[in-house]
Amino acid sequence: MALIIQKYGGTSVGSPEKIQAVAEKIIGYRAQGHQLVVVVSAMSGETDRLLGLAGAMSERPTPRELDVLLATGEQATIALLSMALEERGCPARSYTGAQVHILTDNAHNKARIREIDADRVAADLAAQHVVVVAGFQGVDDKGNITTLGRGGSDTTAVALAAALKADECQIFTDVDGVYTTDPRVEPDARRLERITFEEMLEMASLGSKVLQIRAVEFAGKYNVPLRVLSSFEEGDGTLITYEAEGMEQALISGIAFNRDEAKLTALGVPDQPGVAHLILGPIAAANIEVDMIIQNMAADGKTTDFTFTVHRNDFSRGLEILQKVAGGMGASEVVGDPKIVKISLVGVGMRSHAGIASSMFETLAKEGINIRMISTSEIKVSVVVDEKYLELGVRALHETFQLDQVVTA
Amino acid sequence: MALIIQKYGGTSVGSPEKIQAVAEKIIGYRAQGHQLVVVVSAMSGETDRLLGLAGAMSERPTPRELDVLLATGEQATIALLSMALEERGCPARSYTGAQVHILTDNAHNKARIREIDADRVAADLAAQHVVVVAGFQGVDDKGNITTLGRGGSDTTAVALAAALKADECQIFTDVDGVYTTDPRVEPDARRLERITFEEMLEMASLGSKVLQIRAVEFAGKYNVPLRVLSSFEEGDGTLITYEAEGMEQALISGIAFNRDEAKLTALGVPDQPGVAHLILGPIAAANIEVDMIIQNMAADGKTTDFTFTVHRNDFSRGLEILQKVAGGMGASEVVGDPKIVKISLVGVGMRSHAGIASSMFETLAKEGINIRMISTSEIKVSVVVDEKYLELGVRALHETFQLDQVVTA
Repeated sequence: MALIIQKYGGTSVGSPEKIQAVAEKIIGYRAQGHQLVVVVSAMSGETDRLLGLAGAMSERPTPRELDVLLATGEQATIALLSMALEERGCPARSYTGAQVHILTDNAHNKARIREIDADRVAADLAAQHVVVVAGFQGVDDKGNITTLGRGGSDTTAVALAAALKADECQIFTDVDGVYTTDPRVEPDARRLERITFEEMLEMASLGSKVLQIRAVEFAGKYNVPLRVLSSFEEGDGTLITYEAEGMEQALISGIAFNRDEAKLTALGVPDQPGVAHLILGPIAAANIEVDMIIQNMAADGKTTDFTFTVHRNDFSRGLEILQKVAGGMGASEVVGDPKIVKISLVGVGMRSHAGIASSMFETLAKEGINIRMISTSEIKVSVVVDEKYLELGVRALHETFQLDQVVTA
Repeated sequence: MALIIQKYGGTSVGSPEKIQAVAEKIIGYRAQGHQLVVVVSAMSGETDRLLGLAGAMSERPTPRELDVLLATGEQATIALLSMALEERGCPARSYTGAQVHILTDNAHNKARIREIDADRVAADLAAQHVVVVAGFQGVDDKGNITTLGRGGSDTTAVALAAALKADECQIFTDVDGVYTTDPRVEPDARRLERITFEEMLEMASLGSKVLQIRAVEFAGKYNVPLRVLSSFEEGDGTLITYEAEGMEQALISGIAFNRDEAKLTALGVPDQPGVAHLILGPIAAANIEVDMIIQNMAADGKTTDFTFTVHRNDFSRGLEILQKVAGGMGASEVVGDPKIVKISLVGVGMRSHAGIASSMFETLAKEGINIRMISTSEIKVSVVVDEKYLELGVRALHETFQLDQVVTA
């Protein structure tokens, strides 16, 4: 018998029929003797409906009141799922974030969980109840309703798993696990049996939207085994854990990519201390997030080129700011390119194996793909290439590193 | 400056536009220097939508979970109205029933308020906020969400008015006050400036659905001046208070009627102790509510006729039960009539004036209306007549007692 936290997202509970199906699924797990705490999101479409109502009240609704409004979405789902369970003779109890004291800070619309008082849940579990908890929401220390931001239900599930010392936290989604890369780009992409927290973070932050980053961080911090699996199909999904001692590890776990990048460059910038700050200060002040930053040595010993990438939506604003700043510091020219993408190889096996990067560059060169930028971390190599090479590059790398097969180092 | 509790029902907040209009109205009252606590219902249609979802889960949804679900309706409205107020520069704070500790018993779906901790509301009022509270909902002493049953928002408003010792509790509805009778039956029906709690209770319990009975009882008990007025039109509405000392009082305040009555009679019942209980016990056990009960003296000294009225929906079930019971006690026959109505004259002035009942019977006789049953209380005379005479009877009585004019005793 294990204590399992399960989380079902909006698509999984998107209609009365789907909620009934989730109830059946839960009863199946319970029949195997497991204790279950189930975290649910708002029915898909509900959050948008509520945002529409808020938009009809105000262009910028008060954050506190927006949370009061949005929190009704999950509250409806917990009640409906509990009814469906009880209808099947399975004792169930629903709780809002406030009722199980999911204490957060008071940053409305993007609150962070501080503490969970799991006593009430533990008592219900001991009484053989299935406990159904509203995801995405909590209360601050004054009892105001807060929400964790979109996707926050994953975090609720992981936080409950940590508080209850659960054996596993299972995130049910509309995909059946984490893949070596996006199967829409590479049909030979393979579902991973397991992946480490660090790898998952790199995959998630690079556009793979299976799991919320904060949930993965949280799970890593409290060492909660996390499993991603499908609400609609059978299967074991992908288990996310720490690298097991002595476990053979694939060199590369997967290829992540990000279509939404744009590149900005100031050419002929004086090569002197403080330049990076002079350029990036105003960018940060405009709330533009910067991803990669590259500055080469000055070839002539006097000037250098400074390049960074931003989200494609921020390209025009970023270009404008850079033009102003660069003019002031005597840069020769400002250029930009909104049609670039980032491709990254991710794998903890990379740590102990040199040559991954060079194999990557060789593969891309063979396909005639010019690399515009390179950036590396301990478990990741990222390159920026022209947008048109995305599919070609991903497929070539998938083949080079034999990601369609289970290969361990 | 006065402290006013206002309650806006589902129709008054039935769309984003209507919520905006309510916000405007509130700001108008605030500009007059009043402190305001506003209680709102779910947007009209929302409760039915939620009940539909619950029905898709289970034919008999768990009462606890139904309350969790239904409570989302008002929670959405408080957030939206607060946003609309803040958008207009009016500081506002929303609270669910749980957040202002509207403590109830644990009778889910029909809970009763035990206590309100009004400290938080008082603090917000002192800080010049408009406080917006979800009607219809509370929490039991274990923190479970409860609801007060349909129309419970009126009770929330009155309970808050009592707890805060408010100067007035204003119930905004889709009618502009309490009328001498239903204007759809008698076009000359006149809006009453004021009416007593006792009269209002008789009017309400007889089918006039302006206010929930429990709210009127509550207001009477705690002596909270209650005013019914229109959300959509200007006007002073109707004030419900205790009879003022020395105030001249109309003989009759109004004519209430109830179309939903049905009559059941057991003929030739043995005239002996315990008969009433033998008949009504099984009726009560079947959860059928009985309104009027009449038993005449036995003309032959041995048997009597026993008649009572029930809601028309319960007629068939009631007839079936009565047939079984009456057979067992040797009654000669059971008869019933589902096509009857009750007409009642209501007025505290009646107390000190004999002759009201006989004027009533005379009026009906003149119109050829046969009276089937009569029942009286200190401030009410009710008659049961055939359904087809309802409009004729109401109009004739309205004229006899000159209810279209302000007449005091």
